[in-house]
Amino acid sequence: MNIVITGGAGFLGARLARTLLRAGTFALAGAPTCPIRQIVLMDQVAPPADLTADVRVATVVGDLVEQLAQPEVRAWGEADAIFHLAAAVSGECEQDFDLGMRSNFAATHALLERVRASETRPVLVFSSSLAVFGHSPEQPLPTMIDDTTTPTPQTSYGIQKYIGEQLVADYTRKGFVRGRSVRVMTVSVRPGKPNGAASGFFSGMIREPLAGISAACPVPDETPVAIASPSRTIEGILQAALASDSDWGPRTALNLPSLATTVGEMAVALGRIAGSAATDLLDRTPDAAIRRIVKTWPGRFKTTRANALGLRADESFDAVIRDYILENPDAVKLQVST
Amino acid sequence: MNIVITGGAGFLGARLARTLLRAGTFALAGAPTCPIRQIVLMDQVAPPADLTADVRVATVVGDLVEQLAQPEVRAWGEADAIFHLAAAVSGECEQDFDLGMRSNFAATHALLERVRASETRPVLVFSSSLAVFGHSPEQPLPTMIDDTTTPTPQTSYGIQKYIGEQLVADYTRKGFVRGRSVRVMTVSVRPGKPNGAASGFFSGMIREPLAGISAACPVPDETPVAIASPSRTIEGILQAALASDSDWGPRTALNLPSLATTVGEMAVALGRIAGSAATDLLDRTPDAAIRRIVKTWPGRFKTTRANALGLRADESFDAVIRDYILENPDAVKLQVST
Repeated sequence: MNIVITGGAGFLGARLARTLLRAGTFALAGAPTCPIRQIVLMDQVAPPADLTADVRVATVVGDLVEQLAQPEVRAWGEADAIFHLAAAVSGECEQDFDLGMRSNFAATHALLERVRASETRPVLVFSSSLAVFGHSPEQPLPTMIDDTTTPTPQTSYGIQKYIGEQLVADYTRKGFVRGRSVRVMTVSVRPGKPNGAASGFFSGMIREPLAGISAACPVPDETPVAIASPSRTIEGILQAALASDSDWGPRTALNLPSLATTVGEMAVALGRIAGSAATDLLDRTPDAAIRRIVKTWPGRFKTTRANALGLRADESFDAVIRDYILENPDAVKLQVST
Repeated sequence: MNIVITGGAGFLGARLARTLLRAGTFALAGAPTCPIRQIVLMDQVAPPADLTADVRVATVVGDLVEQLAQPEVRAWGEADAIFHLAAAVSGECEQDFDLGMRSNFAATHALLERVRASETRPVLVFSSSLAVFGHSPEQPLPTMIDDTTTPTPQTSYGIQKYIGEQLVADYTRKGFVRGRSVRVMTVSVRPGKPNGAASGFFSGMIREPLAGISAACPVPDETPVAIASPSRTIEGILQAALASDSDWGPRTALNLPSLATTVGEMAVALGRIAGSAATDLLDRTPDAAIRRIVKTWPGRFKTTRANALGLRADESFDAVIRDYILENPDAVKLQVST
């Protein structure tokens, strides 16, 4: 089995690749289990060294739209599954409209056209986002988002992701691809460096204090957030490729499960685990630009369809922090109670 | 005031132009009434002679995407209002995927980019369609569609229109244009020649028998349909340009009012007005391709938001037929009771 991961050098892409390589086999869309022969990681930068060291890993480095325009990029034609995770993130897309339209809108369309031209009809998992849902005074959202809530995105990133879902749905209906779109929740705790996502502080406010570094926490305590740990997020993305067509069901995107919490509760959980030495490192200076984006996102989801696929939310944010500490021992400098 | 109409040689575009030219003035988006100085009709073919005879009418004939790529098409920069009606229709888009992606998806994006580059922020009315709503076994629609029902298009045309709505919403949110999207219902009775729309027979089954010609009526009697006459449709499109920003409200597309009827009821109304001489001309041979598209569309709408803007549905299908007869006396060959 050959697998392509766009955004394959990013945090989720690399973690997905490691999970697949460790398993060594994959049962695609209800089919029998097969060994994984090759994983092609496409990204603007090279993937981490542990991945490139694996003989099953191939890399394609460069701009995705440009790569797809080159006839020599033939990996698509042989792929059984494509995980399309590459994207410009919410904060960047709000600041640079053209960047988002190219990286999210044009690249997703170009990828689908390339897959269509290959006539191999691979399974394609598209990572959409909870950002397709947006509150605004003129377009209030229900308190609880469910599988039938109409997305009314309030950011360019959310619009671009929602358009991607529509394209995946129609290319699937037409039989060009077997597409499944999943709406990824706010992932926390992401390890490593901050990125340009408006949601980045939801990880930074835990990760940096644990490393003994001060961190921005620029929105009010009561700000709701729908969190999923990296493990739960990868589980959701994988399940989208594993499910049979009949288990997967309609072509609309799947809301992944999430833990409903608030920024204030997250800070309290940090304090329970790492004490005031950690919470004293939180810089509560407001950031209006981040607040403007984050406050449009919903915090509570009822995910009946995802639960029927066996997917579950994290049990508590304390458990999410403890998982991060276990997985990233070198990044934790404070004394913690686990 | 300068106005651009894409699809300006089509039935709705030409009728909209005539309505505007007859009025001579327009009160754009709640602003004071101004004389109409110029209407640019863009289409792949030349508009009807009565329109080109008007000194206020300019025409641009050719492919919309190609025209928009030419720097000399500067009409956009001067337009106060753009009515974007140009589209490939549902039946064509289902048969020719690339045609729909170019005419509906790429052209709408190119138009919005041209408007953005002009930095003039015109009012832009985008004609979307009830085809954004689609029934399927996996994605059943509610019996009554309302202003909050989630579109789940079941045709490429519906997907392309829904993506257009999303683009118009975000270009509006970003301040590049003042966009308003209206979802046009099934227009009947259209005069003139059949087009490639799967919904074309909803007009043909009235128009052709009145002219003494047999007509296809290829779906069962009980098929529901949400009808609007040409007059009501043009009213809805105009109201989208007339309404002030606050009256218009959210950036989501507006479902225009419609008369809920069925194919059987339409045939009965034809019989009441033109007798069995007309209904005997209905050819009830089923057409599976048309049935497959039409059966995905909903027939009943509750249009609270449109009604608050003063828009109303047609009172009865008998009245719709009588309006057609009054407006197109030369096209009616049978004896009718009006």
